[in-house]
Amino acid sequence: MYFYKEDLINMIVPDKPDPAAAKVLQEALGGRFGEMRTMMQFSFQSANFRGKAKPYRDLIRGIFLEEISHVELVQTTINQLLNGSGEEGVGNVGTDGAPLEDAVKEHANPHHYIMGAQSSLPVDAGGNPWTGAYVYSHGNLISDLLDNLVLESTGVLQKSRIYEMSSNKTFRETLAFLIVRDNAHQNAFAKALETLGVDWGKLFPIPNYDINMLTWASIMPNSILD
Amino acid sequence: MYFYKEDLINMIVPDKPDPAAAKVLQEALGGRFGEMRTMMQFSFQSANFRGKAKPYRDLIRGIFLEEISHVELVQTTINQLLNGSGEEGVGNVGTDGAPLEDAVKEHANPHHYIMGAQSSLPVDAGGNPWTGAYVYSHGNLISDLLDNLVLESTGVLQKSRIYEMSSNKTFRETLAFLIVRDNAHQNAFAKALETLGVDWGKLFPIPNYDINMLTWASIMPNSILD
Amino acid sequence: MYFYKEDLINMIVPDKPDPAAAKVLQEALGGRFGEMRTMMQFSFQSANFRGKAKPYRDLIRGIFLEEISHVELVQTTINQLLNGSGEEGVGNVGTDGAPLEDAVKEHANPHHYIMGAQSSLPVDAGGNPWTGAYVYSHGNLISDLLDNLVLESTGVLQKSRIYEMSSNKTFRETLAFLIVRDNAHQNAFAKALETLGVDWGKLFPIPNYDINMLTWASIMPNSILD
Amino acid sequence: MYFYKEDLINMIVPDKPDPAAAKVLQEALGGRFGEMRTMMQFSFQSANFRGKAKPYRDLIRGIFLEEISHVELVQTTINQLLNGSGEEGVGNVGTDGAPLEDAVKEHANPHHYIMGAQSSLPVDAGGNPWTGAYVYSHGNLISDLLDNLVLESTGVLQKSRIYEMSSNKTFRETLAFLIVRDNAHQNAFAKALETLGVDWGKLFPIPNYDINMLTWASIMPNSILD
Amino acid sequence: MYFYKEDLINMIVPDKPDPAAAKVLQEALGGRFGEMRTMMQFSFQSANFRGKAKPYRDLIRGIFLEEISHVELVQTTINQLLNGSGEEGVGNVGTDGAPLEDAVKEHANPHHYIMGAQSSLPVDAGGNPWTGAYVYSHGNLISDLLDNLVLESTGVLQKSRIYEMSSNKTFRETLAFLIVRDNAHQNAFAKALETLGVDWGKLFPIPNYDINMLTWASIMPNSILD
Amino acid sequence: MYFYKEDLINMIVPDKPDPAAAKVLQEALGGRFGEMRTMMQFSFQSANFRGKAKPYRDLIRGIFLEEISHVELVQTTINQLLNGSGEEGVGNVGTDGAPLEDAVKEHANPHHYIMGAQSSLPVDAGGNPWTGAYVYSHGNLISDLLDNLVLESTGVLQKSRIYEMSSNKTFRETLAFLIVRDNAHQNAFAKALETLGVDWGKLFPIPNYDINMLTWASIMPNSILD
Repeated sequence: MYFYKEDLINMIVPDKPDPAAAKVLQEALGGRFGEMRTMMQFSFQSANFRGKAKPYRDLIRGIFLEEISHVELVQTTINQLLNGSGEEGVGNVGTDGAPLEDAVKEHANPHHYIMGAQSSLPVDAGGNPWTGAYVYSHGNLISDLLDNLVLESTGVLQKSRIYEMSSNKTFRETLAFLIVRDNAHQNAFAKALETLGVDWGKLFPIPNYDINMLTWASIMPNSILD
Repeated sequence: MYFYKEDLINMIVPDKPDPAAAKVLQEALGGRFGEMRTMMQFSFQSANFRGKAKPYRDLIRGIFLEEISHVELVQTTINQLLNGSGEEGVGNVGTDGAPLEDAVKEHANPHHYIMGAQSSLPVDAGGNPWTGAYVYSHGNLISDLLDNLVLESTGVLQKSRIYEMSSNKTFRETLAFLIVRDNAHQNAFAKALETLGVDWGKLFPIPNYDINMLTWASIMPNSILD
Repeated sequence: MYFYKEDLINMIVPDKPDPAAAKVLQEALGGRFGEMRTMMQFSFQSANFRGKAKPYRDLIRGIFLEEISHVELVQTTINQLLNGSGEEGVGNVGTDGAPLEDAVKEHANPHHYIMGAQSSLPVDAGGNPWTGAYVYSHGNLISDLLDNLVLESTGVLQKSRIYEMSSNKTFRETLAFLIVRDNAHQNAFAKALETLGVDWGKLFPIPNYDINMLTWASIMPNSILD
Repeated sequence: MYFYKEDLINMIVPDKPDPAAAKVLQEALGGRFGEMRTMMQFSFQSANFRGKAKPYRDLIRGIFLEEISHVELVQTTINQLLNGSGEEGVGNVGTDGAPLEDAVKEHANPHHYIMGAQSSLPVDAGGNPWTGAYVYSHGNLISDLLDNLVLESTGVLQKSRIYEMSSNKTFRETLAFLIVRDNAHQNAFAKALETLGVDWGKLFPIPNYDINMLTWASIMPNSILD
Repeated sequence: MYFYKEDLINMIVPDKPDPAAAKVLQEALGGRFGEMRTMMQFSFQSANFRGKAKPYRDLIRGIFLEEISHVELVQTTINQLLNGSGEEGVGNVGTDGAPLEDAVKEHANPHHYIMGAQSSLPVDAGGNPWTGAYVYSHGNLISDLLDNLVLESTGVLQKSRIYEMSSNKTFRETLAFLIVRDNAHQNAFAKALETLGVDWGKLFPIPNYDINMLTWASIMPNSILD
Repeated sequence: MYFYKEDLINMIVPDKPDPAAAKVLQEALGGRFGEMRTMMQFSFQSANFRGKAKPYRDLIRGIFLEEISHVELVQTTINQLLNGSGEEGVGNVGTDGAPLEDAVKEHANPHHYIMGAQSSLPVDAGGNPWTGAYVYSHGNLISDLLDNLVLESTGVLQKSRIYEMSSNKTFRETLAFLIVRDNAHQNAFAKALETLGVDWGKLFPIPNYDINMLTWASIMPNSILD
């Protein structure tokens, strides 16, 4: 059974409205490697777990719990980025007097206004709805852990790229926090696989950078071997 | 933030394996009106909530919490229905010696074996993946509550029909429990709407029956006025 | 059987081309709460109707008929908004001489040109194709009527928000007409439910405004209780 | 504007319930080449029509009208095939006393019971929802007519195969009627193409231009006959 | 079995980065009438071919082979259009210092950066993933050839429209090359249909039977030429 | 550019028709981890490759070439499993004289007859169409290789389970061949990652068994640690 304490897992840093940032941040919520995927994948893997390897189940379920909070954090961040956009009397009224006219033309996702009333949606940066077909739960411990590793490291990779899409502080604080946590999970799944016999050498984390000095080169195509 | 106590929200009653029952029970997990929908819909509605009407937000978030446990309960029930099906040496071997041959021919969802290794999946009774397009969160309190009402009452309606699809005890115990809870939520949302001015008369619950004496007629097409 | 009189159900008011408006108006045609949904939902509900409650069936079928005309009206409006956009010699030629270059950069849906040749499409404002999964026809009169109520009131809610996305007269005339009709249907389904015992109080219409003086506040997030 | 006369376009021949036949007949309703596709394709093509070639528009719109009745006929036929299936006390009760148990095991689509309450659905024979991505309306008269030809002839091809899937009289009468009508439409579109010069004559390439001097006009809506 | 010679089927003409052109060119790769569709449709039609009409099978398989190269050509062209976009120190840095900020605002597909790292994707111009539902392989030679004709001629039609969306030379060279080849294939399928008697001659109806004596043979795979 | 030699990459072993086996074998063709996925994923990864690490690109492209043949092999195997099913006069006629009646009731995919005319389809074992959303090509060499490893090892895992679903020789020969090849690819990607610093220990292959003595236990849920 599940309990809740009213507290976001990380702070929301204030900055100005940014509908274009809200649109691309949706990838981290409803994308193929976003927080809804991690939450639901670990929900299925932990509930579907059989056999006696309880520590592995506990690991997966623990991260599942954290991912529920990540979903909430990204939802709240998107809402903050949309707050105050397209409102009358705040200098955002379209040239012809339609309050949402400029918002629509600022690379926003129109569903953020039509459906969400300036709120988050269960879709990715391109507007495609999240789908259960993303979930990997194949009942083989090594396969499941390997897929979790790919999932978390791709999460870091994507978020590092999304981070470069706006300098908005609300946007970047949430992404930086999630990158740190995804890296922790990437490591946790790598360590779990080490207990099963693998030695990763210097393979992880993906991409190879220091969070304090994100460099664009490290997330470029196939750059590792140039 | 979210916490977990290792305990299912309802018991799992033992009975024999039943892959056909597992297949149709998927509707209550990954269907358009299943528990993944309620969980994610209330997640989005509570996180997207603005304005001062905090009691309504708390109502929605409280049910969100319970739905996380419902997802876990249906996942576990499906797993139990699949346990022991298609196994060697348990009398289930196909006539030609292929352990899964009979399972495939017993109206099972083949993905329960190919992907899930006898486990639950994020799909409906027809095998269609769950989609974010199911979620309703439109930022208007009345609309959101009305859609929640339709969601919960349709949940009861569908589960009452699914209940008639097998007499397996594992299957029926979980469905009976969920019908009771969906009715409670149906009432909760109806009451919330009453505080906004509506008098429902005798409209609810849908369908009109006593859980202790389910009658087939009450879930027939448009039967209420015959 | 069905008959046709060549006449749109409402006039098309001329104004200048507006591909961005055409893109968002697609929500009212192929969106989850658009006219294709109402048309097909009432088609299924009326054809699937059993039992003796013929007046309810006639109500649903009557609105189905009107929705066929609504689909035609939105298709024609979108075409009018696209007419003359991106054409050579009308001042719309791209800076590099490619006639569609500017159109593509004016927040248009590129499929309006690639597929439609400046015509309407069976998709929503985000370009997602309409899907049969939107249709609700569950064979329980109260459930079906409640879902119709949510469908029509959400239609009004969405169209009120879309209305704020452009001041183009072609666009706004069609939306204003459809808002009036959706409100009429919202009321019709509410009244049908009243005959089954409910007293709505002041719950409807959603959102609460006078069409002659649309106010932005009335369609804001959860505004009713502030 | 559209009008209705309460009359099916063809009779329903009585026969016994047949859920497996109802399942495969869904292809003729919500499949890629079913009646929902023809109805919506001709709706879009006739509403999107520009240019002066009015007789072609009238042809397409006339068939659109007829297809509305075809949708209604297939819906009603599926309902008739489902009527009386899975009911208590009619000899269909499952061996364990669950009324729908046998229905589920008779190759039925479970959604016919869970959602439809023994009614038709907007899906195909495999349970996949109908999608707007099926619609072809490309604003070039020859292309549109050619695709209509493929659509109607594939409709005949598929229905001839579905016809062999059950000898149920309800099922076969509706299919035989639709095959005759699809053939009539197949011929109508072939004749329309003949008036444009087929033997193939100068029909191809589409669009008609010299690659060395691409002109925008040649790819405009239905421009060939202006 | 398949072999490869490292050589693109046409040259890549250099020009400046153009993310908006890359976005719309995706239609020619992953769209309903793009190169992935032609490649997979001819793969299925040639592998599924039965009967003795070998020259038709060879025709289809030959074009299948060419389409593999077309897929590669469009992938490479999109990559070239994305190369150098959004990079630090090349004058593309956003006003706030985020390297991808401008790219996101230049009508790019955000997934080109988040997933693809400036690379092609299996999606269309609207970002919808390619789907197997596009493939037509119906086991009737005339139907398959007719659909191929519609596919290739619609390919030309769409590419002619996309061609007008940018004057970028990288973009236009690839499109011009593909238009020529699609026309060649359009003609090849038209000629193949001529060998079957078109003017329409006795081409229709499909399949060839008398409704009063439906025979199974007439709807068998590619039976017309046996 | 691509060339073809008319020769399947492995033999087709004759056995009797088996529509149920054909249905589940579709997973190996159009499923999330089937041959269409490997073919298209390696097509995108090799065409999207940048940087100087040419041996890695050649590895991926070489496997891409082989996967084209695998797609052809599975298509042909499915066709062979469907040949002779549901035909008149071969003892398969339904009790009521409809040739396809029994086929429909033998756990077949009805689309194998309605669309395919007894031929393969671009769908999975549940009938869901293949989608471009399966493809992983993220422009980071380690991520791409890790995902390829998961893809190939999950391919083996799934095919080992599908293998247990029928003892039909046509079916099993193709699966056994593909399992061997998938294991070879699994190893090739593991070795490529070793050159980047990882030591896998005894992690691979997944699942751990000898192909000459498939044991059911090795593909059971999470069995490795029991």
